[in-house]
Order: sequence, then structure tokens, then C-alpha cells
Amino acid sequence: MPFTPAITEQRFVLDRIVAIGELGATDRFAAASDDVIDAVLEGAGALAAGEWAPLNRIGDTIGAKWTPDGVVMPDGFVAAYQDYVDGGWGTIGVPEEFGGQGLPFALQTAVLDTLGSANMGFALCPTLTVGAIEALSHHGSPEQQALYLPHLATGAWTGTMNLTEPQAGSDVGALRTQATPRGDGTWSIKGTKIYISFGDHDMAKNIVHLVLARTPGAPEGTRGISLFLVPKYRLDADGKPGDFNDVRVVSIEHKMGLHASPTCVLSFGDHDDCIGELIGAEHGGMRAMFTMMNNARLNVGLQGVQIAEGATQAAVAYARERIQSARAGSPDKSPVAIIDHPDVRRMLMRMKAQTQAARALVYYAAGQVDRATLGEDGAMNRLEVVTPLAKAHGTDLGNEVASLGIQVHGGMGFIEETGAAQYFREARITPIYEGTNGIQAADLVGRKLGLGHNQDGDGAFAALIADMRSEAKHERLITLIDACDAIGRRLQTADADDRLAASYPFLTMLSVATCGWLMEREGRAVPDSEFGRMKAASVRFYLDQIVPEALGLDAAASASADVLYALEPEAFAA
Amino acid sequence: MPFTPAITEQRFVLDRIVAIGELGATDRFAAASDDVIDAVLEGAGALAAGEWAPLNRIGDTIGAKWTPDGVVMPDGFVAAYQDYVDGGWGTIGVPEEFGGQGLPFALQTAVLDTLGSANMGFALCPTLTVGAIEALSHHGSPEQQALYLPHLATGAWTGTMNLTEPQAGSDVGALRTQATPRGDGTWSIKGTKIYISFGDHDMAKNIVHLVLARTPGAPEGTRGISLFLVPKYRLDADGKPGDFNDVRVVSIEHKMGLHASPTCVLSFGDHDDCIGELIGAEHGGMRAMFTMMNNARLNVGLQGVQIAEGATQAAVAYARERIQSARAGSPDKSPVAIIDHPDVRRMLMRMKAQTQAARALVYYAAGQVDRATLGEDGAMNRLEVVTPLAKAHGTDLGNEVASLGIQVHGGMGFIEETGAAQYFREARITPIYEGTNGIQAADLVGRKLGLGHNQDGDGAFAALIADMRSEAKHERLITLIDACDAIGRRLQTADADDRLAASYPFLTMLSVATCGWLMEREGRAVPDSEFGRMKAASVRFYLDQIVPEALGLDAAASASADVLYALEPEAFAA
Repeated sequence: MPFTPAITEQRFVLDRIVAIGELGATDRFAAASDDVIDAVLEGAGALAAGEWAPLNRIGDTIGAKWTPDGVVMPDGFVAAYQDYVDGGWGTIGVPEEFGGQGLPFALQTAVLDTLGSANMGFALCPTLTVGAIEALSHHGSPEQQALYLPHLATGAWTGTMNLTEPQAGSDVGALRTQATPRGDGTWSIKGTKIYISFGDHDMAKNIVHLVLARTPGAPEGTRGISLFLVPKYRLDADGKPGDFNDVRVVSIEHKMGLHASPTCVLSFGDHDDCIGELIGAEHGGMRAMFTMMNNARLNVGLQGVQIAEGATQAAVAYARERIQSARAGSPDKSPVAIIDHPDVRRMLMRMKAQTQAARALVYYAAGQVDRATLGEDGAMNRLEVVTPLAKAHGTDLGNEVASLGIQVHGGMGFIEETGAAQYFREARITPIYEGTNGIQAADLVGRKLGLGHNQDGDGAFAALIADMRSEAKHERLITLIDACDAIGRRLQTADADDRLAASYPFLTMLSVATCGWLMEREGRAVPDSEFGRMKAASVRFYLDQIVPEALGLDAAASASADVLYALEPEAFAA
Repeated sequence: MPFTPAITEQRFVLDRIVAIGELGATDRFAAASDDVIDAVLEGAGALAAGEWAPLNRIGDTIGAKWTPDGVVMPDGFVAAYQDYVDGGWGTIGVPEEFGGQGLPFALQTAVLDTLGSANMGFALCPTLTVGAIEALSHHGSPEQQALYLPHLATGAWTGTMNLTEPQAGSDVGALRTQATPRGDGTWSIKGTKIYISFGDHDMAKNIVHLVLARTPGAPEGTRGISLFLVPKYRLDADGKPGDFNDVRVVSIEHKMGLHASPTCVLSFGDHDDCIGELIGAEHGGMRAMFTMMNNARLNVGLQGVQIAEGATQAAVAYARERIQSARAGSPDKSPVAIIDHPDVRRMLMRMKAQTQAARALVYYAAGQVDRATLGEDGAMNRLEVVTPLAKAHGTDLGNEVASLGIQVHGGMGFIEETGAAQYFREARITPIYEGTNGIQAADLVGRKLGLGHNQDGDGAFAALIADMRSEAKHERLITLIDACDAIGRRLQTADADDRLAASYPFLTMLSVATCGWLMEREGRAVPDSEFGRMKAASVRFYLDQIVPEALGLDAAASASADVLYALEPEAFAA
């Protein structure tokens, strides 16, 4: 199945949802001229379609392999990654002072969208590097920045995030990895981390591990965590990768998907010879990690968009080719392409609409990253409140669309060779990593609902509701926004159990309201073209059919936790 | 993960939803005494837990293998299948005159529920045999019945259904396999069939293929199709398997799941030496096939229950063991089992409630099979109208529950060794085979809404609505039933496109209404026990939270097809 980059759609969303023209008018993002934006979208599209997409199935069937000398990528990945580095695709969103192009985060989002739609497992590698760059550019020392950032910016070196340990998953504060001072300002690192994506591979000259660890005498929980920079190879006097730094890849996981992305168990300091540098302040690890994680959450939401885009393209192509049965009610009894059957078309329309909704939501959030960089009033609050929506709902939609993609393929969808199954399998990790979607919902009803909240009610949540109200015209959309407002206010003062019991349905309602608001805005600006007519139909379908569904969650988002705790845990096994 | 048969729940549903006591009071099902029912549930449970469940992961990882001499099952399957045959588990629902125990179909459903919850891929084999028995016992000649049924009843021989060809999937009428008279009353069969589950294996002494084919000069489409009995080995003068009948297994598919179930490409008559016998009348194939397919559809809906049961048990066990984070809002800061976190508990409660809802729906339908056998007034109509609901909604719920099961496991859910991923992968075929869920929805709004319909409105659909109204007490449930009634009446006179465009959301609404009605009935009869308290909580959750969600589908089920056909197919690629 050839992959076609969604360039028209991306440019439209950058214009209408991100308002990237406004960004390009600032000094900070002056590089983002119209021509540059088009050139970036087209260039990334060519790389994705020409080199990355053809490796998607190979990545799945062959996969990354563990060897005693490290992880080896499937054939073709090393060369395709080098072309990514050589093309400067890693440098898009990196500030110029760190060797980047200083373009908006939103444009970098579009590049990752394209690369990941072609090959999500592969695109996870640069996505992680982006996170490492974020952490270092905000919290690293000038020396660390000078030594590491130029290589991370190009992608010549890649980055990882090392949070999880067997006993410390969602509860990061329970981690046990130790950092002990070596007396020369560096630290000796010792411990085991699991679920480290691209923790090892053979595509880069060095791998920069950002590792959460505990220093001697540190307080318990997240308050006692520090962040360390731990390269796979220590830098020599010329700043080049030198001695091996005692970071051993113990094994890689046997996963349901993303086989091209090695999920590593990493052992630091087996021979007491693993040296790390502190990033930022001691015990300031969570703050630094959150810098990295917030944007990483958007990038995982973006994986939902990637999966949805790839799965939709495959399903549309199949439905246009596959001939089966005459159209019901038609006098013509010849079999037609299945795209002409109403229920197949309903599935495809839903896939289109949900993909566009997810993209609008994630790109909107990405635009707020840039506006926060510019110091725009309220942008950081807007970003904070939509981040859990973008991560959780974006990935939920990726899963829904991938499942519909299989259904459109019928029996072929269950056969691996078709490719629809790969999207479905790979989508399933996205609601889990970077903070499960349940944790996103908890973040929404916990920290985010109260953010900037005061007696006038003009906090981050109230601002989002006001933004939506100022534009929304569709009757059911307005009803949904009102329902979200009422439930959100109620949850602000509810007790913890009730708030959390309602959190997920509420997150879904608020996400659909946000998507509906953005889709309606897109619908007001459709061009007179085939793309514009498709967009208009998707917007109409979204507002008329998907928005009302979210209203059905009202009861669940308003329910108390009582029913959940009416029973002892043992009863669930009855 | 040890599997625990859901015997208390099964017995409760057989009593309250099937009213199996009423069946046991008839001559036809007199064998179904209380003691026998309990013994069957417990015996099947012991076989499932002791022998079939331990093979579930082996079936997935090793899988059935194609060899030039036929398909070979993974280690352990041949012996475990023989124990199924020896224990008489195949004979439960087969009438006594054909060598069976003459017990209700609903009880056989419970047995397959248990076996498939332990090992769905394996249980598919007996499920297919049940279909072959149905077809032969209703449409076979006395000779065919005498020769084949006793061996199929025990499962010593297994059955298959051969409908699909590469160009004839959902459109069965497009098939091309030829049957040519040999002059002695038998037929020469030639053609290729695909997607034949258990089309070959090494667990039985013979395999009885039921094959749809076209006779010379037959009319086009489904009207020209005949059904043939084609054994793998022809029977000798003693009725024993003798000469090979030129049915070759060309290959097996590489699927996303169900690896224990070989999905075969079968070639009939490569050497012009494949002999079949006509079942029923020439050109009567579709009628015979429907006999087989209707109950097969219930059995696929039952696979949704199986998956949901297995996935829920695994998730509950994991959530009770996995310790992570303190409970939010609690003064005690020690980490707790994740089942104590509200959103995890919400997921588990939803899994329990949806599993019970699916079981109620499918068992209700199974009970109507028995009532139709008894000639009970209206039973056949009830069965016909709920069959698409049981198949489509049962399998949709299996998918939803399996996905929640992964989410409860967090990162572990994406690792294959955990087992949650297998449920998720395997669930995904069930909305596709035995008529895609879209076809079930088309059947509902096409044939089933009009079934027995007259000017007084007392058709099958109206009868279901009346049944629900006579019992429903919950306010939102009554609202949902009313909405289904109104939409259903409107769809009866809508044009084909509008009817089909609305078919899937309508099917979901009507399914939830039906489940809500049955769950509410269960809720009125809960015993004073841990099981009873769990049931009461599930019922409350279902009525208060899941029923209202279905009301959100009102807009989609009421929409016209216009938005779907506002565009040319090309625009979907824009």
C-alpha cells in the first residue's frame, strides 16, 4: 500500500488551527515563511513515502534483534535513518542557538506526523530524541548543551527516557536506581530500567540516556528524584564518543507490535563503571522530567493521528478496489466497490472525521507550545489543560480508527500480510505509555481543572470553555460544551474518589467538545476543492453524529464512585 | 493465569434468562434435570480448566502448522481433543435419535462458553462441528444422517463450512466451485475455498466438509447454489474412513490471532477425484446453509462472551496483585493494589458488566433456539430478531472488554507473555467472520425489522419491544426502549441507503436495550451471596452508565445517508 503524505490537510490545519502565519510573523519563528513551511511538509513527505513507508512491514516482521553486542535494526533502517539525519529533519524545531532551524514545534509536529504515519515504530526514535533535547535545552548546563545538543539536534545521536523500573511504573516515585557522587562532580549510576524505547540500536554513534535516579539520603517519593545524563559512550576530550559507559542492554521485550522499536531492559553500572552527570538541581528530577514528558505526551497523542492516518489510507484504498455485492436497493445488480455500500462508507467517513479531529486537537496543543514559547498570554494554561486530552483522546481515536480499518478489510484485515492488523496492534500501546490514559484523566480532573482557578472561575479550564463558547454554533456542540462546563465545575469540588471515578468519561466528553469546536472552525474555512468538500463532509459528520455520542457519557461523568466501591476486591473474582 | 469456569454465573443465567427449568419440564428436554445441568457445567469446567486452558498460549505461540501431509496441531491438542470426545462433550445438544444426549442448545452453549473462555481457538473446532450437525440433522437424507451424525455427534469426526472463495466473501452468490453429476447420484466437486477454519488437522479420523457449489446450468447468484457433503476420506462399505477424497490443503493463513485454529485454503478435485453428495434439494444450498449459519452466528456471538470472560478474569487477577501508588485522597500513603484505584475499578466494573450483558444476550438467544425446537409461539421470531444482535453486539463487547483488559495491565498488557494481548488479537476476527457485523446490521434493518410485520405492528421487532416494555423499570432503559421503537418503526419504511446508513448505530442501541432489559431481570433475582452482590453492582452500573451511552447514538441512528454520499469515492483519498 503506497503511503501518501497528507500535506494539504496538514497545511490547512497549520493555517486554521495553529495559525502558523501569526507565529511566522514573530522574530522567534521568523524562519517559518510560507515557502519554508511548504518545503518542509513536502520534503518530509518525500522521505516518509519514499524511504520510511517501505520499511514499515519489514520493521514488523523482522523487528529489532537483541545480540550480545547490542540491538541490531532490520535491514534498511540504518540507511533510512542516516537520510533523516542528513536531510536535517531532526533540527526543525530545535532553537538556532542549539544548532537547530528554530522553526515552530507545530511544524516539527507535522513532520513527525508524516514520518510516523509512514512508519510509527521507526518515528518513535526521533520522537524520543526530541524529548531529550527539550530536557537538556531547558535544564542542562551550558557545557552539557554545547556538548550534546548539536548532535541530538541532527539526530546523529539519539535520546531515551529512563523512568520505569519493575516496581515503579505509573508510580515513578517508587524507583530505586542509585546515583552516588564520585567526588569529581560526576555520579556513579547503578540500577535497572525497563520499557526503554530505543534503549539500544545501531543507527546512531551515541545514545544519550536521561535517567531518573535517587541520590544518597534523598527524600522518599518523587521529591527525592534527580535527573542524570548518561551517555552510552563517554565523550572524549574532543567531545567524541569514546569509552563504553557500562550501560548494558539485558534483553528486549516480545511485544504485540512496534517490533521495529526495541523496548529494552537496561542495566546501568553492572561493573560499577557507569558515569552520569546531574541535569539541573539535585532532587529537581521530576521538574526536568515533566518538561520532557509534557511534549512527549503530545507526541504520543500524535501517534494516534499517525496510526489513524495510515489505517484510513489503507482502508480507503482497499474499499475502492474490492468489488463485492450489488448496492442494496439499486436496480443495477452488478457488484460494486465496497466503498459504495452505506455501512462501509459510514465506517470510512468516521475514520476520516476521527483522524481529522485527532489531528486538529494535537496540532492545536502543539501550537500552544509555540505560543507559550513566545510568552503569549494564557498559552501555557491552554497547553496544560489540553495536553491530557491530546494524549488520551488522540490515542483512543488511533485505536478506534485502526479497528475500523480492519473491519473495512473484512477477512483480509485479520491476515497479517494486508497490513491493517499492524496498525491495530501498534495502536494499542499508545493509550498506555507516557502516562496511561487513566493517568491523563486523573491529571485533568486533578491538577488541570484547578489550574489558575480562582473565585471568578477564570482558570485554565474556564478559559478553554470560554474559547469554545465564543465560536461554537452547532446546537449539539453548544449543549456538549455546557455539559462539560457543568460537570467540570462540579468535579472541582468533588472528593477524590468521585472525581476519579468520573474522570475518564469526562475527559472523553471534553475532548470531543474540543475537537468539535476545532472541526467547526475548520468547516468555516474550507476551500473550493475536492479536499474542501471532503473536509466539509467530515465536519458535518463529526458535529451531527459524533458530538451527540459524547452527550451519552453525561451519566457516567456525573456518577459517584459508590457503585465501584460497593464491593470488596474479592467479589470481582466471583 | 489459572482459568476458573464461571459456573455460578452460567447456572444463574440459565435459570433466569433461559428459564431452563421450563425446558427440562418438557418431554423433548426431559434429560435436562437440575442434577444433569450442574454435572455438565462442572464437568466441562474441569476439562476446560484442567486441559484446555493450559494449551491456550501454546496454541498461540506454536500454532497449527501446514505440512505436505496435512495440518499438524501443536503438542497436547490431539490428546486434549480426544478427552473431549471421550467425555461425550460433543453430544450434549445433539438429539438422541442421532446419537446425542438431547439436552438443550442453551446448555451446549454454556459448555462451549466454558471451553472457549479457556481456549477460544481450540473451541472453534467443536463449534464448527455443531454447525455441520445442524445442517445434516435438518437437511440430510436418512442414510447421510445414519452414516455421519453419530461420528460428528461425538466429535470423533469434525465438520467445516465451505462458503468463501476469493471473489465471493460477503457475496456468497458469486461463488464458482462446480459440482458435476457423476451419473451414480454422486457429484464431482472442483474448486477452491478460502478461510476454512479447521479445514484440516490431525485430531479426528475424518473431516466432513459442507461445501457450497454450483451445479451445471444453475441460476446465477444465491438461487443457484447447492450444498454438498464432501468427506476428507470417503466411507468404505463398513462406513469407515477409507480412500482419500482429493481434498488438498494448499496453505494456511498467517493471522493476527487464533493461531491454534488453522485457516485453510482448500482445493477440491485437483485430480478430478473429489466426490460429494448433495444435501437437501439441488439449488437449496442457501436454505441449508442458513440453518447452519444462524446457530453459527450465535456461537460467534458466544466467542465474544468467551473472550470477555477470559480477559476479565486475567485483568481482575492482575489488578488484585499489582501494587502501585497510594490511593488518591487517602491519608495512608502506602501503595495499594491497583484494583483500589477508582479508574482501574471503573474499567474492571465495566468489564464485568459488559461480559454479563453479552452472556445474557447470547444465552437468551440460545434459549429461543430451544423454544423454537419445542414449537413455542413466537420463539422463532424472537430468535431471528436477536440473532444479529447476539452476533454483532456480543463480538463488539468481546473486543471492548479485551481492550480494557490490556489497559488494566498497563505496559505489561502489550508484552505477549502476559496473555492479555492474545485475547485482544483473537477478539478482532469475531466481528468479521460468520457475516460481518455490518451484514448483521443490514440483516436487522432489512429482513428482521419486517419479519412477521403487519398493519397492527405485531411483528418480531414489535414483539421484542413489547417484551422489554412489559418488564423494564429503569427510567433511562425505558427511554432507550422508546427510542429504539421509534427509530425501528421509521427505518421500516426508510429507503435502502438511509436504512443501511443508520443500521449499525441502531443495532447497538437495540442491543444495549436488550441487554439492559435482561440485566435488569437478573438484578431482580440476585441471591444473598458474594456472587449476588457482584451481580447487583454490575446491573446497577450497566443501567446507570452504559444504557445512557447508547442514547447518545440516537443522532447517528436517525441520520440520513446524505452526508455519506455527498462525495465521490475519490474524495476519500483527498
